[in-house]
Amino acid sequence: MTEGIVLAVIGGGSSYTPELVEGILKNAEEFPVRTLRLMDIDETKLNIVGSLVGRMIEKENLSVRLELTEDRRAALKGADFIVTQIRVGGIKARIRDEKIPLEFNVIGQETTGAGGFANALRTVPVMLDIAKDIEELSPEAWLINFTNPSGIVAEAMLNYTMVKTVGLCNVPIGFINQFANMLEAKVEDVLLDYVGLNHLSWVRKVYLKGKDVTDIVIDKLIKNLPDKEAESIKILGMIPNGYLHYYYEKDDVLSDLKTSPKTRGETVLEIEEQLMKKYQDENLREKPPELSQRGGAHYSDAAVSLMKSIYLDKKDIQIVNVKNNGAITDLSEDAVVEVPCIISGKGAIPLSCGSLEPAISGLTQTVKYYEQLTIEASIAGDRKKAKQALLVHPLIGNPRIIDGLLEKIIEENREFLPKFF
Amino acid sequence: MTEGIVLAVIGGGSSYTPELVEGILKNAEEFPVRTLRLMDIDETKLNIVGSLVGRMIEKENLSVRLELTEDRRAALKGADFIVTQIRVGGIKARIRDEKIPLEFNVIGQETTGAGGFANALRTVPVMLDIAKDIEELSPEAWLINFTNPSGIVAEAMLNYTMVKTVGLCNVPIGFINQFANMLEAKVEDVLLDYVGLNHLSWVRKVYLKGKDVTDIVIDKLIKNLPDKEAESIKILGMIPNGYLHYYYEKDDVLSDLKTSPKTRGETVLEIEEQLMKKYQDENLREKPPELSQRGGAHYSDAAVSLMKSIYLDKKDIQIVNVKNNGAITDLSEDAVVEVPCIISGKGAIPLSCGSLEPAISGLTQTVKYYEQLTIEASIAGDRKKAKQALLVHPLIGNPRIIDGLLEKIIEENREFLPKFF
Amino acid sequence: MTEGIVLAVIGGGSSYTPELVEGILKNAEEFPVRTLRLMDIDETKLNIVGSLVGRMIEKENLSVRLELTEDRRAALKGADFIVTQIRVGGIKARIRDEKIPLEFNVIGQETTGAGGFANALRTVPVMLDIAKDIEELSPEAWLINFTNPSGIVAEAMLNYTMVKTVGLCNVPIGFINQFANMLEAKVEDVLLDYVGLNHLSWVRKVYLKGKDVTDIVIDKLIKNLPDKEAESIKILGMIPNGYLHYYYEKDDVLSDLKTSPKTRGETVLEIEEQLMKKYQDENLREKPPELSQRGGAHYSDAAVSLMKSIYLDKKDIQIVNVKNNGAITDLSEDAVVEVPCIISGKGAIPLSCGSLEPAISGLTQTVKYYEQLTIEASIAGDRKKAKQALLVHPLIGNPRIIDGLLEKIIEENREFLPKFF
Amino acid sequence: MTEGIVLAVIGGGSSYTPELVEGILKNAEEFPVRTLRLMDIDETKLNIVGSLVGRMIEKENLSVRLELTEDRRAALKGADFIVTQIRVGGIKARIRDEKIPLEFNVIGQETTGAGGFANALRTVPVMLDIAKDIEELSPEAWLINFTNPSGIVAEAMLNYTMVKTVGLCNVPIGFINQFANMLEAKVEDVLLDYVGLNHLSWVRKVYLKGKDVTDIVIDKLIKNLPDKEAESIKILGMIPNGYLHYYYEKDDVLSDLKTSPKTRGETVLEIEEQLMKKYQDENLREKPPELSQRGGAHYSDAAVSLMKSIYLDKKDIQIVNVKNNGAITDLSEDAVVEVPCIISGKGAIPLSCGSLEPAISGLTQTVKYYEQLTIEASIAGDRKKAKQALLVHPLIGNPRIIDGLLEKIIEENREFLPKFF
Repeated sequence: MTEGIVLAVIGGGSSYTPELVEGILKNAEEFPVRTLRLMDIDETKLNIVGSLVGRMIEKENLSVRLELTEDRRAALKGADFIVTQIRVGGIKARIRDEKIPLEFNVIGQETTGAGGFANALRTVPVMLDIAKDIEELSPEAWLINFTNPSGIVAEAMLNYTMVKTVGLCNVPIGFINQFANMLEAKVEDVLLDYVGLNHLSWVRKVYLKGKDVTDIVIDKLIKNLPDKEAESIKILGMIPNGYLHYYYEKDDVLSDLKTSPKTRGETVLEIEEQLMKKYQDENLREKPPELSQRGGAHYSDAAVSLMKSIYLDKKDIQIVNVKNNGAITDLSEDAVVEVPCIISGKGAIPLSCGSLEPAISGLTQTVKYYEQLTIEASIAGDRKKAKQALLVHPLIGNPRIIDGLLEKIIEENREFLPKFF
Repeated sequence: MTEGIVLAVIGGGSSYTPELVEGILKNAEEFPVRTLRLMDIDETKLNIVGSLVGRMIEKENLSVRLELTEDRRAALKGADFIVTQIRVGGIKARIRDEKIPLEFNVIGQETTGAGGFANALRTVPVMLDIAKDIEELSPEAWLINFTNPSGIVAEAMLNYTMVKTVGLCNVPIGFINQFANMLEAKVEDVLLDYVGLNHLSWVRKVYLKGKDVTDIVIDKLIKNLPDKEAESIKILGMIPNGYLHYYYEKDDVLSDLKTSPKTRGETVLEIEEQLMKKYQDENLREKPPELSQRGGAHYSDAAVSLMKSIYLDKKDIQIVNVKNNGAITDLSEDAVVEVPCIISGKGAIPLSCGSLEPAISGLTQTVKYYEQLTIEASIAGDRKKAKQALLVHPLIGNPRIIDGLLEKIIEENREFLPKFF
Repeated sequence: MTEGIVLAVIGGGSSYTPELVEGILKNAEEFPVRTLRLMDIDETKLNIVGSLVGRMIEKENLSVRLELTEDRRAALKGADFIVTQIRVGGIKARIRDEKIPLEFNVIGQETTGAGGFANALRTVPVMLDIAKDIEELSPEAWLINFTNPSGIVAEAMLNYTMVKTVGLCNVPIGFINQFANMLEAKVEDVLLDYVGLNHLSWVRKVYLKGKDVTDIVIDKLIKNLPDKEAESIKILGMIPNGYLHYYYEKDDVLSDLKTSPKTRGETVLEIEEQLMKKYQDENLREKPPELSQRGGAHYSDAAVSLMKSIYLDKKDIQIVNVKNNGAITDLSEDAVVEVPCIISGKGAIPLSCGSLEPAISGLTQTVKYYEQLTIEASIAGDRKKAKQALLVHPLIGNPRIIDGLLEKIIEENREFLPKFF
Repeated sequence: MTEGIVLAVIGGGSSYTPELVEGILKNAEEFPVRTLRLMDIDETKLNIVGSLVGRMIEKENLSVRLELTEDRRAALKGADFIVTQIRVGGIKARIRDEKIPLEFNVIGQETTGAGGFANALRTVPVMLDIAKDIEELSPEAWLINFTNPSGIVAEAMLNYTMVKTVGLCNVPIGFINQFANMLEAKVEDVLLDYVGLNHLSWVRKVYLKGKDVTDIVIDKLIKNLPDKEAESIKILGMIPNGYLHYYYEKDDVLSDLKTSPKTRGETVLEIEEQLMKKYQDENLREKPPELSQRGGAHYSDAAVSLMKSIYLDKKDIQIVNVKNNGAITDLSEDAVVEVPCIISGKGAIPLSCGSLEPAISGLTQTVKYYEQLTIEASIAGDRKKAKQALLVHPLIGNPRIIDGLLEKIIEENREFLPKFF
């Protein structure tokens, strides 16, 4: 990497890409990208996003070589860093993931429950294919994964491939920013005792310059929440990841979803269409403010911070998805967890977290078993494992609906699930 | 015990007692009870049941000395074996346990969920008091526990007292009888690979004279079940304890309970009243056939087999509740589990079961955490722990109802929960 | 097996065979051997021993078909039970194993230390070859292994093959007989809390009809031992396997070995020659009393008891070598351990032993690592692993001698270690 | 600590103190000590060293208040940081620790083997007394321990007291400096994968700016070592802590010690006397160069770095002794280990190390059991535990000498071991 970094973005036609690129350009000095490759299977989106990115680079007057390609192997070859942000089946598949479960009276959502399960069945095999290419074409590259369901994808990459993967989510960095703001403190003075899995994590403690300020943070948080929403925080004495409301308020969420006129995927589809229109404006030379509605705040910060710390061997603390290696003693060494890590030139080393509290351990282990069963099912096209995954999942669990639900998911995703036919 | 056994039955006024006594009388040669002490706080029931038992002994013409007492310490003093089958608050409390949860839209049941939780809050402190007496008055005695929630009570006795406790349930012996019958085989030729907790267990394998006949048993079972009920067996490839239908068919069970005209407790109350009437018949000198409606088949067999094997150092295999000690590698050494054990003069030694399948491990661990939190809450009167227990329980889990549910339970059981006031 | 058992003895020309056959003939009713196959690569010994065995069968007037063969595959084909009692390289190799280590100032012995290590290098690959044949020719057969180093062989068979193996040693049955005798009790009333590995085990507790009589046993034992030899028992409060004196009295043993005129192997060679002469006496129709000098008391009892309990699904307790499966919580689930097991038609199920005492856990784990490294070295011909095995072993440990010692072992066993060349 | 730090040095009369003070004065800006308290029970040495320290402060022209005291409680009261560097029984006791074991033909050394054991018996109770004072008088203080045997002392402090303790050794910082030097690199670019216990550790990997340079470091190391000494590095593929030569070259070390005219303690005694003379020179206003002969290079660097990172919440990586908490999966969560940690305002958080290699795991666990048995023995005056500790220790292990060795140690340390009388 002495002559600058080759960065490949798989799913580069995503509407998120300008956000990522903004971060890269801002950090050009410390993290000098020489070649930026955007790869996508959707030529139209690739060209729209690629053109905007080209104008962004031009505006900053940086010597970054931009390459647009539909050829994945060309994009991966010799890359130093690879960002994966694909969506197998596109937003249409996501919308199906949101709707099918509702027919069976269970929550439909992109990353968790039966929706996340369907997404995983489609996505894991594709990600493993990408991994095979990387093992061949850029075995030393670092893969930063944003592809959902992010926890399952990281679990699969780290246990079924040799690719040097770090799974990333914007929730942890979001917490730190929120708490720093709340405490009127600098982000680097806030340290979280944070444990769990992707989208299933808890902040056990907040430290400000080494001082335990958890109670202060919880008090402030609770003040700004409706009574009912604060209950889980009060019972636990910890701050759950927002995605945990799918578990803790399952019945309310389900009834909301069933009565909602549009799924989140349908809304996103509209936003994306508007964004793509916006991106085509030849005068636009920067990330448009509308992108923030798309969700994914801090996405760029998280990705660039991580790559920068690897590149510069910074040894700072970031919360990412890695092999457990003993960090959480309730889980096996191989299980992928989302915990604070030292980020160095050799990758992410988890900090020891000890054992999980009785109030959160069972759920964490249960969902990890669900993830592992889902991966095995997706790789082998194994219906029995798939059904066990659905039985184990706390948002499903009912054997009476499982067969119907699984067959419907398989049928509707037929083109993406050759292993099941 | 050279001159015969002193057996104390705490809760001896129970309608079950004649069943237990029948078993004891039948086994008088191998398990020679010299003194049978029935202790109960309900004088009326004690006298009714005691009189019947007296007539049963007389009929068999055995020299068993029968003692009826309301004085627990007198009953325990110098006992060799103690059977505990108490119900703190009586059937009225049980009926409340069944009804209160329904107001909060969760399952109410005697041993599991919010009902079992309320039962545990009342029962654990009383059982620990009994344990203190035993530690003082008969430290070498073996305690056979049937008191519900049986799993939690055994967990408490084995981790918070020095009493030599074995927790017992009639489900395992019921399975063995059912399968032996199904296979037209002798009970002693059937060996179960059985794992889990009390009322949360699975038969992983059935062996007949060492041959794996699980598939044959499952096929026969499924043929006799409605399609929907067989689903969990098919998905798991194992046979779940009947109590697991509270988990696997949660929504259906809840809706059944909500529309049922009577709770099980209310039915039991009626049966018990009829039984007590029957028992008063001076001509009745044996267990009446109506007792079988009360539930608890094999209850006597299980208890007497266990005591006999301890007394005779038989070293046969029985499925009981003991400290895990590594038998199930997913659980801590201290956790009480329901697994096959060698029953010898030194008590029950669990057979190694290895690790639980991913499809059942998370649920088992989660419920074990619930049990441990419940015990801690009941001992200390700790509302926070109590709420965590309810949050962790797969049949509850909703933080929005927990505060209300807990306060209602505490209020309605006020006289039995001094620690919470 | 309905028409009687086919039993194959690999290494059937061993001088031990008459002992084994005596046990089989005595148990003919309960364990009906229809065909007895003795297989050996040494035709002379096979014929001598085979003839004697023929006369023994004849004397008992039993319809056992005796087959003698040098063809291993023929012997294994369709066998129900297989006993392996081979010695790769014969007694000459054993004598080398005893002598080479002494040149490097470390203990030379058949099963432990550098001698056992050399033996393992030779033996493991041959046993894995036998396993391959069994997997093909009699996959349902039970293998009872006596081949030394027995612990390492069982570890290899159970982790590197599919063969249904139980590792056997006469030490545990010897302890039980000794204690029963000492207590004037029946063997079946004695239960040992026995833990560890083959030739590295401890009796933690002795129970007589369920009563802890450990202190009585220890007192009696100590009275009969010279002061110095009783020290380890007193310090531990447990009774160590006799082979532990190689560890606990390392320096004394080494100096004894260095000054001894003959190694044990050399003595055994003489005894064997005399035995073989004796066996050729046409009038001899039973096991001669001289065989007892050969060592291996209870060898036949142990083997026949084990096979009988498997055959009859007896579910009694015997101490054998099996996969740990959580029995000893300090060791991994896969590690092979020597512990009390239930012996049933499905094989040996270990009883839970919990965690090892601090005074014995480290040594047990260390030797298990040694065993695993040795197996890996022997399979791959891996010198680095071999050296690590020798470094780890408490009887060796000195890096300065390891290279020389290993090369000498490899050189002197050249014909048996093709993987290293 | 807003107005500057109160630092108490227990054992402040040590000849090492000027080294520590030099480091503190150099770092006055970042780590502003307001009050420096030197406490010692030896008034003479306290005054000599105290005077020199006074002159050192004066020379630097810093406003550090210096307090000399023989009153431990006065020294501890309100301290922010406490450094413990005591030697119970003084160098005379150390010399006995070195000599007694030789009489029994085992190694005598200050921190390991029977010498370290004797040292621990004397030292642990005193350290626990200090801890009681700290719990009362400065419960928020950080204790930095250098007192030997440092690993055992840290194990005792972290498991038997509430004191916020970090155990420190100069070996890890010495390795980093050595390797940085060897690689012509900056110290902060070197990251060690370092595992084990105090004085029983291994560098598994060396990373330079994230690149694995272990092989380069090993090659350079081996070139500079005599053939024989390099063997353990070659066999392991890791770099052992220098103290491991007591284990790996046990016999050679023992024979060297037995023929050496003076023990290390005797040499140190002479050096110390000369240093004390030197320190009395009124013109001496800085650490004299002769101090370096005393050993303990980097001692001041290690201590000041650690305290600075806690004070400034630096979150950098340092290798210290902390509770394992899952960092090394082979050891229990409570075991104290020496591993890379993040040092922040809340103390040291270990980085996950995963499982130990088979070549080092057994030894590490064995010595940890030894440490724990020794602590239990020292607290309770328990001879049985003490003997088990000696039996377990790889440098002792011989039951025949243990009783004599232990009684001699107890007798010769009579005044320091009241618990044993």
